[in-house]
Amino acid sequence: MSRSRFSRRAFAGGAAAAALTPTALGTAATAQPRRAPSAPSKEPRLLTLYMEALSDGQMGYGLEPGKATIPGPLLEMYEGETLHIEVVNMLDVAASLHVHGVDYEIDSDGTPMTDSAVEPGKTRLYTWKAHGPGRRDDGTVRAGSAGYWHYHDHAVGTSHGTGGIRNGLYGGLVVRREGDPLPDRQFTIVFNDMTVNNRTGRPGDEAPDFDARIGDRCEVVMITHGEYYHTFHMHGHRWADNRTGMLADPDETTAIIDNKICGPGDSFGFQVLAGELVGPGRWMYHCHVQSHADQGMGGLLKVADKEGNLPGDGGH
Amino acid sequence: MSRSRFSRRAFAGGAAAAALTPTALGTAATAQPRRAPSAPSKEPRLLTLYMEALSDGQMGYGLEPGKATIPGPLLEMYEGETLHIEVVNMLDVAASLHVHGVDYEIDSDGTPMTDSAVEPGKTRLYTWKAHGPGRRDDGTVRAGSAGYWHYHDHAVGTSHGTGGIRNGLYGGLVVRREGDPLPDRQFTIVFNDMTVNNRTGRPGDEAPDFDARIGDRCEVVMITHGEYYHTFHMHGHRWADNRTGMLADPDETTAIIDNKICGPGDSFGFQVLAGELVGPGRWMYHCHVQSHADQGMGGLLKVADKEGNLPGDGGH
Amino acid sequence: MSRSRFSRRAFAGGAAAAALTPTALGTAATAQPRRAPSAPSKEPRLLTLYMEALSDGQMGYGLEPGKATIPGPLLEMYEGETLHIEVVNMLDVAASLHVHGVDYEIDSDGTPMTDSAVEPGKTRLYTWKAHGPGRRDDGTVRAGSAGYWHYHDHAVGTSHGTGGIRNGLYGGLVVRREGDPLPDRQFTIVFNDMTVNNRTGRPGDEAPDFDARIGDRCEVVMITHGEYYHTFHMHGHRWADNRTGMLADPDETTAIIDNKICGPGDSFGFQVLAGELVGPGRWMYHCHVQSHADQGMGGLLKVADKEGNLPGDGGH
Repeated sequence: MSRSRFSRRAFAGGAAAAALTPTALGTAATAQPRRAPSAPSKEPRLLTLYMEALSDGQMGYGLEPGKATIPGPLLEMYEGETLHIEVVNMLDVAASLHVHGVDYEIDSDGTPMTDSAVEPGKTRLYTWKAHGPGRRDDGTVRAGSAGYWHYHDHAVGTSHGTGGIRNGLYGGLVVRREGDPLPDRQFTIVFNDMTVNNRTGRPGDEAPDFDARIGDRCEVVMITHGEYYHTFHMHGHRWADNRTGMLADPDETTAIIDNKICGPGDSFGFQVLAGELVGPGRWMYHCHVQSHADQGMGGLLKVADKEGNLPGDGGH
Repeated sequence: MSRSRFSRRAFAGGAAAAALTPTALGTAATAQPRRAPSAPSKEPRLLTLYMEALSDGQMGYGLEPGKATIPGPLLEMYEGETLHIEVVNMLDVAASLHVHGVDYEIDSDGTPMTDSAVEPGKTRLYTWKAHGPGRRDDGTVRAGSAGYWHYHDHAVGTSHGTGGIRNGLYGGLVVRREGDPLPDRQFTIVFNDMTVNNRTGRPGDEAPDFDARIGDRCEVVMITHGEYYHTFHMHGHRWADNRTGMLADPDETTAIIDNKICGPGDSFGFQVLAGELVGPGRWMYHCHVQSHADQGMGGLLKVADKEGNLPGDGGH
Repeated sequence: MSRSRFSRRAFAGGAAAAALTPTALGTAATAQPRRAPSAPSKEPRLLTLYMEALSDGQMGYGLEPGKATIPGPLLEMYEGETLHIEVVNMLDVAASLHVHGVDYEIDSDGTPMTDSAVEPGKTRLYTWKAHGPGRRDDGTVRAGSAGYWHYHDHAVGTSHGTGGIRNGLYGGLVVRREGDPLPDRQFTIVFNDMTVNNRTGRPGDEAPDFDARIGDRCEVVMITHGEYYHTFHMHGHRWADNRTGMLADPDETTAIIDNKICGPGDSFGFQVLAGELVGPGRWMYHCHVQSHADQGMGGLLKVADKEGNLPGDGGH
């Protein structure tokens, strides 16, 4: 099955297509948010990911040749879907695709040990499946795949992909459950060693800022990679420490937090309404480890008012 | 609005007043604990915090001039309340008040970037609000502000307050929900770099011990600051890893823990009945990172019996 | 009470006996899993643990003289039980038994400070109790003892047992609630400094692999010790971040994870059905801190198919 080729099919109605289309229009908090449908198609979807060299020795995943980014594209699945990912290795070293959270057979593991990496110039097919929650025949509960997950190389530099990850071969994966609210905007934030999304934080290479209008339903996908532990903090916004980052019921006992310790391989996510109860402004997000913050591990969630004005704008 | 001055109003019936009055009397486990009322007043409350120099270059927040402490006073709010905090900077450097968890507009952010720090000799008004849980007009859930939060400087030394925090400019904030049980005793424990509450743990500067009688409802507010990760462990007592540290229902699936990894900016809290099911004794709390414990990052919860006797007393 | 001697009683029907008997037969997912009964006996159980020197300066706990292992035996209790543990110190230094999670009086604390360590050549009795969840007379909830806990020395090298833990004096403790599903196989994984179960990961001293057949209900007990933080990751398998590592209800909002940051003194556990929805294979578990993984902090869950064949077998 590996390295076979599929004919490319259109994504009509697929989740990934929706995810990758930025939604310019903020949703007023009085309008019902769009909700994740049940898996829109029983047909497997096919995606192609290109692994490419970027400047300064960096590497990225992209959906088209020449379009690799760090982080790679934020992928989405609904529970019940199957996603075939054809990975094209345009690098000069063997590299791979290893995913967290979803179901895959051992030949989609993406590790040298299981002989599932991709040689330079070659293509390999990886298959991921997302399943919904339910009960097994034995009466116990099988959790669904929904969650904030991620994918990364597991072959460059070492058999754990230490070189690939350091250079930028990583991205986010959101698996949604039927009925989950869909965001207006999505931000992927990766604390990778002492960088944010491989930006060092030094002048000219600042950590990314993110734009929103007040009331926009913003989804943050937060991933950690590399060597160090970090603590992700956001000013003026909080989230629930559960599967969605949001409470399903006002009485839920889950802790509400605005600061979370995380280490390599961890991922979590949440949705906030930009500026809810706090108004517009230049709201910082940063690693709360003091030396990390001081060295530039942080940027801004710029929340403009309804007219698009950003209070206090004028530099970072 | 910044630097305006309020006339001081009394705290009659306010939460902060209650919090700052130590309750000498333990509550027997058969008596109903006092419960948090709904927000006792729709009137905003006003508090003044003084930022002052202490000996050896340390700095603290205090409720009266000359009374600064490390940690600063443990503040409390109920969901539904507004708290105005007039911060008086008696230091010789610009310093500020940045809070986690509650709602504030961008001019109460307490960061140099938002021009909301306080110059030496000046006063600035910060406004915090706590809201209850509920449903938005769009049908989604808005979590309430209740939780174990904290406040700290965000301006001394670096734009992230690295110097202020290192020197002691931090404190705890408890936001309660209507019906939350109120404690008999409160202990704030801050792992700040390799210290507990800025005490180094070396002879003559030991980490604090805390006194209780068996059955006292003790509330621990645990905060981490600085550079390092830690693991907070308590002997003979456990808590739930949720909003309150306590189960709301015996069948709740939340993990019960007695050891928790934490990093800078994190905070959590819980209530235990001192010595419940284990009896009186000198119960250690400590960072479980071995070298941190060995260097003095720990103290005692001294649980006396009903007559006030402490088994095994006679040194630390 | 300390150092008194009990006559040894048989474990007939006891939880520890069941736990220590490996179950060779996998349970098909259609068969009901065995369930934890209510506490099988109101009689206290008695166990003897021997602390012994192993080769290369290592130390271990064992259930019989000359049988010490690293980690020590995985102990089990049901809520409602009392366990007396007679600890025999066959080392040439004072050592002890300190436990997390369950109830014990201060003279079973296992710390030099409370004079509850064991001198060389001596024996000491420690008593642990596990209680079920319920309501106190004051109406608040008392959480039960069920959880994934652990025990370790608190006396060798330093008063926090830094030397004993480093050398291998640790083990797991599972406390079960009535109705909890019982596993077919149990694996204890301890990240202790840069080792797994004190194996360095270097050639000839690899981290342990674990064998299972597809569908086996495998229980992982994961403990961290020493100096460093780690992130525990497992390929192809996930768990719930709650008390049992499993959902009690398909709608539970708990996060499902496959990677968890942990630090010294932390413990958690979960059950997975080996290879569920992903099939047989050599599934890696490892610390996801890149340099830790690269230095050998990881092994395999080897999931054979129903015939006992392991795909891709042929080296690690």
